[in-house]
Amino acid sequence: MLKIFDNKYRVNYNDADFTGKLSISRLGNYILDTAGLHAMDLGISMQALKVRDMTWVISGLHFDFYSMPEINGFINIKTKISEYSKVTCKRDFFITDNDGKKIADVSSEWLIINTLTRRPVFLYEAFPEVGDLVFEKENQVEKYRHLRFNFLENARRLKYRVMYSDIDINAHLYSMRYLEMSLNMLGEEFFKSGRILSADLNFLSEVLCNQEVELVMQSPSLEIRQIEMRREEKPVFRVEFRVLSA
Amino acid sequence: MLKIFDNKYRVNYNDADFTGKLSISRLGNYILDTAGLHAMDLGISMQALKVRDMTWVISGLHFDFYSMPEINGFINIKTKISEYSKVTCKRDFFITDNDGKKIADVSSEWLIINTLTRRPVFLYEAFPEVGDLVFEKENQVEKYRHLRFNFLENARRLKYRVMYSDIDINAHLYSMRYLEMSLNMLGEEFFKSGRILSADLNFLSEVLCNQEVELVMQSPSLEIRQIEMRREEKPVFRVEFRVLSA
Repeated sequence: MLKIFDNKYRVNYNDADFTGKLSISRLGNYILDTAGLHAMDLGISMQALKVRDMTWVISGLHFDFYSMPEINGFINIKTKISEYSKVTCKRDFFITDNDGKKIADVSSEWLIINTLTRRPVFLYEAFPEVGDLVFEKENQVEKYRHLRFNFLENARRLKYRVMYSDIDINAHLYSMRYLEMSLNMLGEEFFKSGRILSADLNFLSEVLCNQEVELVMQSPSLEIRQIEMRREEKPVFRVEFRVLSA
Repeated sequence: MLKIFDNKYRVNYNDADFTGKLSISRLGNYILDTAGLHAMDLGISMQALKVRDMTWVISGLHFDFYSMPEINGFINIKTKISEYSKVTCKRDFFITDNDGKKIADVSSEWLIINTLTRRPVFLYEAFPEVGDLVFEKENQVEKYRHLRFNFLENARRLKYRVMYSDIDINAHLYSMRYLEMSLNMLGEEFFKSGRILSADLNFLSEVLCNQEVELVMQSPSLEIRQIEMRREEKPVFRVEFRVLSA
């Protein structure tokens, strides 16, 4: 059975930010799309799970960024399932341009939940054939770190109400919008001269349309930006960026 | 010289809204991307104009929607320049699925502006070869209407501050975000059972990052939704949707 899955995308006009380079949340769109196509290949697509009242949700991501392509550049994404446990599955991504130059390495952790109870199911219940897959355990991308933040009083805050365009086919806040809203906390000024070297993302809770969230950001050092999203004071998402600022 | 240009896209995972179908603003992304590729083919791409301190801006759009594809469906976009005047250029789009079934017909009007003065330039200054092109004047999509609204006191209002992820390579609010923010005014509830049949869009002014806008919406009849975006009380964008609501 297929171990490594390949897909290729062109950087579309709207995938670039104001610097003219692929933005990291739009790269995230293509990563998730490729995961979806690979899952379809394995018979465990969102669509196949939906009729059994199940769906994939993402619990964490780790990104290492190297060099972002410009509009009309190409993105080659290789993905593989590297490990699985009773309830989680680790999927790695290796992203290069057409010359083989590294764009990013990414690891992700996934759960399958029951869409009625919103609780995780055992992976083999959803996907009995998982035990038959041959995994390549070598050459893995490091796993995301579990984040804990202590925010100071002077942390920057922004309130936002989730809208129609923020939610995905699961009718909850689209995972890459958590990331994109965090990039918005860094702001246009940051991206004029700074760049993101790596990121760890923790997805803690679903957020539904029309719910209000608050984003809180602080910089414990020049190289680190910590952002937490909260709903009714409870954290729903955390991200830590390692950055190079001018 | 090439009169009609073709491009094809797959509906990616994140192009669908919560109903599982392609959202109209994401269709808009592909339309603009195709226009960009055709302009590149003609030697008048954004990139080619940029070094001459010029860029394309869109002044209006008209959409007729037929049937939206689902994730993994295909979008075939044919585009042609149908007409031009001293300062504007009309571009039409004909969008179908792989079976030839209509997805949408779209017309658009464009200007080339000087990026230093932000004023329009004569089309032949930017593109002397425009006079040599042979246009197919038949089979045009109707042009957008110029909109004027009279809002009542009870119109629905929403304030929004433009953020990093809302701006494009021109460092101003991305044209499809004007549309997407207008769809957000209709809200999740509308899209549960309603759908948009057609839309006229008027782009009146650029909006920059960190500027605050206000969206105002009213429904003068069951079939019509009028939305205006304002900055400091002055309109920067108008859209009128003809809708079918449950």
